[in-house]
Amino acid sequence: MGSPIVAEALDQLFRNARTPNDWRDEPVADGTVRALYDLLKWGPTSANSSPARFVWVRSAEGKAQLASLAMEANRPKILAAPLTVIIGNDLDFPEKLPQLFPARGEMMKAWFLQPAIAEVTAMRNGSLQGAYLIMAARALGLDCGPMSGFDNAGVDQAFFAGTRIQSNFICSLGHGKPESIYPRNPRLSFEEAGRFA
Amino acid sequence: MGSPIVAEALDQLFRNARTPNDWRDEPVADGTVRALYDLLKWGPTSANSSPARFVWVRSAEGKAQLASLAMEANRPKILAAPLTVIIGNDLDFPEKLPQLFPARGEMMKAWFLQPAIAEVTAMRNGSLQGAYLIMAARALGLDCGPMSGFDNAGVDQAFFAGTRIQSNFICSLGHGKPESIYPRNPRLSFEEAGRFA
Repeated sequence: MGSPIVAEALDQLFRNARTPNDWRDEPVADGTVRALYDLLKWGPTSANSSPARFVWVRSAEGKAQLASLAMEANRPKILAAPLTVIIGNDLDFPEKLPQLFPARGEMMKAWFLQPAIAEVTAMRNGSLQGAYLIMAARALGLDCGPMSGFDNAGVDQAFFAGTRIQSNFICSLGHGKPESIYPRNPRLSFEEAGRFA
Repeated sequence: MGSPIVAEALDQLFRNARTPNDWRDEPVADGTVRALYDLLKWGPTSANSSPARFVWVRSAEGKAQLASLAMEANRPKILAAPLTVIIGNDLDFPEKLPQLFPARGEMMKAWFLQPAIAEVTAMRNGSLQGAYLIMAARALGLDCGPMSGFDNAGVDQAFFAGTRIQSNFICSLGHGKPESIYPRNPRLSFEEAGRFA
């Protein structure tokens, strides 16, 4: 560590990356999805708890089902995108702590199994992993269309039945049509968003 | 978009980045903190809601106060790090929608003001922004030490009094001591973490 990454990479990840609203008809290869997971998995989570679970929806049936559970405005985006991933939080994540945190797995498992702690930990760290997914996808040259306007309970029933995984948000992946991008909205200034102490 | 960023940048962001447990005595300059914010602010959030708020704690008094509210194991890390940022979720974020989403700000504000929606949106998107912060810090060559073991209510009272900002997690920033890094824990395989549909 020590030096910034090259300016072109900062542009691709942050400064120039935009959310498209329509998608080119180009598939996302299996190998790209696996490469994406093999980057995002390294992002830090509490005690390596890694509570996010992913359903990579790309079949015609899967896309139709997911679109039918989304807000009206999001349906055409899901149908047009080559792939939309559902990011869920697994409330049973503590069961995997012995595998994921060998040094103190049983202790951490008992800690995280406390109900209120399991839920907030899953939501916080599952969301972190969702952002690592967005950053890793952009790093690989994919565009991202994250969305939270959908019927969470319906998606859970359709895609996570028989588990304690709860959908968090969804994100279309692929190559967006540049003309479908809206003008960029302003951001809060440094002072509006925080302060030194 | 289209091509992956250079391999060295993927290493720095994901593959080689690690969490240090002790820190070199080197300050993080004002300009670096502002450059960090000017990257992370571009990460996508629901309707550009941008609910995260940041207190960049680097004074001796601030560090002592934050350390006193942390779990025993986290105290020396906070005291040793040149800076620890508190990432909070502002439940009043809808008030800023007219500024942040000019096209439909008043409509989005009314939508997000619904209490259950405000809370989950703030937590989801505030956590995404926390992950953008981690990625942006690594992109600038800083090490990150994210922690959620602290007294949230105490931190809210000490650092966010008179607001509806709720602390989410904290993250030390600086240059870590390589010898303080633990062996890396395993991650879930692609199949353990998800599936195609």
